[in-house]
Amino acid sequence: MKNICIYQDFLTQAHKAQIRETAEPLGFTPHFFTPDQFQEAQACLQNCEILYAHDTNLLRSAPASLQWYCCSYAGVDPYCKDPALFANPHCLLTNSNCYGVTIAEHVIMVLLMLLRRMPEYEALVQNRGWGDQLPIRSIRDNQFTVLGAGDIGVHVASRLRGMGAARITALSRSGVSRETVFDEVLQISRLDEVLPRTENLVMALPGTAETYHILNRARIALLPQGAYVVNVGRGTAIEQEPLAEALNTGALGGAALDVTDPEPLPQDHPLWTAKNLILTPHISGNMTLGYTCDANVEMFCRDLQNYAAGRPLNGLVDRARGY
Amino acid sequence: MKNICIYQDFLTQAHKAQIRETAEPLGFTPHFFTPDQFQEAQACLQNCEILYAHDTNLLRSAPASLQWYCCSYAGVDPYCKDPALFANPHCLLTNSNCYGVTIAEHVIMVLLMLLRRMPEYEALVQNRGWGDQLPIRSIRDNQFTVLGAGDIGVHVASRLRGMGAARITALSRSGVSRETVFDEVLQISRLDEVLPRTENLVMALPGTAETYHILNRARIALLPQGAYVVNVGRGTAIEQEPLAEALNTGALGGAALDVTDPEPLPQDHPLWTAKNLILTPHISGNMTLGYTCDANVEMFCRDLQNYAAGRPLNGLVDRARGY
Repeated sequence: MKNICIYQDFLTQAHKAQIRETAEPLGFTPHFFTPDQFQEAQACLQNCEILYAHDTNLLRSAPASLQWYCCSYAGVDPYCKDPALFANPHCLLTNSNCYGVTIAEHVIMVLLMLLRRMPEYEALVQNRGWGDQLPIRSIRDNQFTVLGAGDIGVHVASRLRGMGAARITALSRSGVSRETVFDEVLQISRLDEVLPRTENLVMALPGTAETYHILNRARIALLPQGAYVVNVGRGTAIEQEPLAEALNTGALGGAALDVTDPEPLPQDHPLWTAKNLILTPHISGNMTLGYTCDANVEMFCRDLQNYAAGRPLNGLVDRARGY
Repeated sequence: MKNICIYQDFLTQAHKAQIRETAEPLGFTPHFFTPDQFQEAQACLQNCEILYAHDTNLLRSAPASLQWYCCSYAGVDPYCKDPALFANPHCLLTNSNCYGVTIAEHVIMVLLMLLRRMPEYEALVQNRGWGDQLPIRSIRDNQFTVLGAGDIGVHVASRLRGMGAARITALSRSGVSRETVFDEVLQISRLDEVLPRTENLVMALPGTAETYHILNRARIALLPQGAYVVNVGRGTAIEQEPLAEALNTGALGGAALDVTDPEPLPQDHPLWTAKNLILTPHISGNMTLGYTCDANVEMFCRDLQNYAAGRPLNGLVDRARGY
């Protein structure tokens, strides 16, 4: 039997049974560890061909015989930036595309909160005030630009579509998508041309050298007056100081950031007090939703079958490209 | 020429032109007034057959020759409760079903805020805190009960459906609907049977004698532990003190009220401090969204054509029934 080291905190008994029932007929024995068993996991890992986890320290102690690191997160930038984490330079790396549903629900929530000026109404009601005169906007008949046409971008777009969005433009490195939910898919190199007509910008990009500060000061200035910005990808994608300035001057209508650089934000960071900013502590895609956990295990099991059969892995990441 | 008195604050020049272009070929002259012209409107109204407004005081001074009062609001309870408002007992009353889109967006927003525990995250971030361990729920695979299968209920259900809701039950007086967006439509008399399996209750009922305190103490107790309640109909539909108690004890997971009884809430009302309550000052369907205003004028013009042709009016209200 070959061995799989599984180091996760979210697995239920049912998830473990599902993994065992998938692995054993394929000749694999899964070994389960929780975060309080780091040393036990480390010891076991020495005889494992596969690791299913999201922990750079554990990966660092994996043997050169590790063939596949299945990361249960979507963002794998820490693993791609530091090739020294892998003793085996050819180790396969997969990420998990199970976060589309929960992150898309987060995006719809914060977009509606921005469009409907909920932070202002919340502040009013917190002081036991009443009133109804703030002009609002709607998803219906509105325009959206989505940076990143992957799992998250597609789930966001399908929900915007269902709510009557007028036009959804996606931008990605390739500029093509098999998905029909976007009105158009353009290459990210055309970003400067698209920003001036972007009323609502949703950013769901991986953290790579190419996406670092992709929304910089000059591009923030290209957005139309009153535009909204939502980021659920990586905090490094936005130059944060000009964003805070544009919020405070009213050049932007508002923003919702679930990711920042760094995380947590330092206590004296200007984003804490920026106007019309909905800040959340990187929770849009966490593992506190049962559906996400189920889908995560489902994807590992499916790729385990692919791995055993010698087929390409669905979640395969290009370690050089970074996603 | 016959006259129409129009007393509104939201009309643009384009709306006025649209009304003129509809009315004049039908033999009607529209007269436009804004809220600072109450006396002028009152004087003009004496020679008018139609009034398009939302003002009980203006209606009270209408002549017995008024044939149609087109109310630009959806809720017409003030007009139905007090027949003395109409000098003409047979005056037609219509309401406006143009609020479905904006109220449905509000409902989706607050449902997601409740399911994703946004009030708790907002409190955390307000104190510059960070953390991600709150269990959340999703619209996907979740169950929803909608009280009221009208314009608002249908728009809410179609959005829930688009986000993957598992089961949507609607309850209405008739227990039937031409809409296919619900999984089932039941008579409101079966409410006690449906509440124990209701994870999320959305209330969009008109304010009538039958809906008064329809969610009373006994029925709040029928909801399962941790259920969420959203009300965008009328504040009178909920017995508010037991609701506040159920929120504070944690029997309910949370609530979002856009309507209360009375409005505004008195400064010492227990709802101001109830746990996990998202309170908004009756804004889910206000006239600050361009789409809503356009649809409102559109509906008036369509019913003006119906009126002139002697056809039934789309927005006709049964004044005795109350909606």
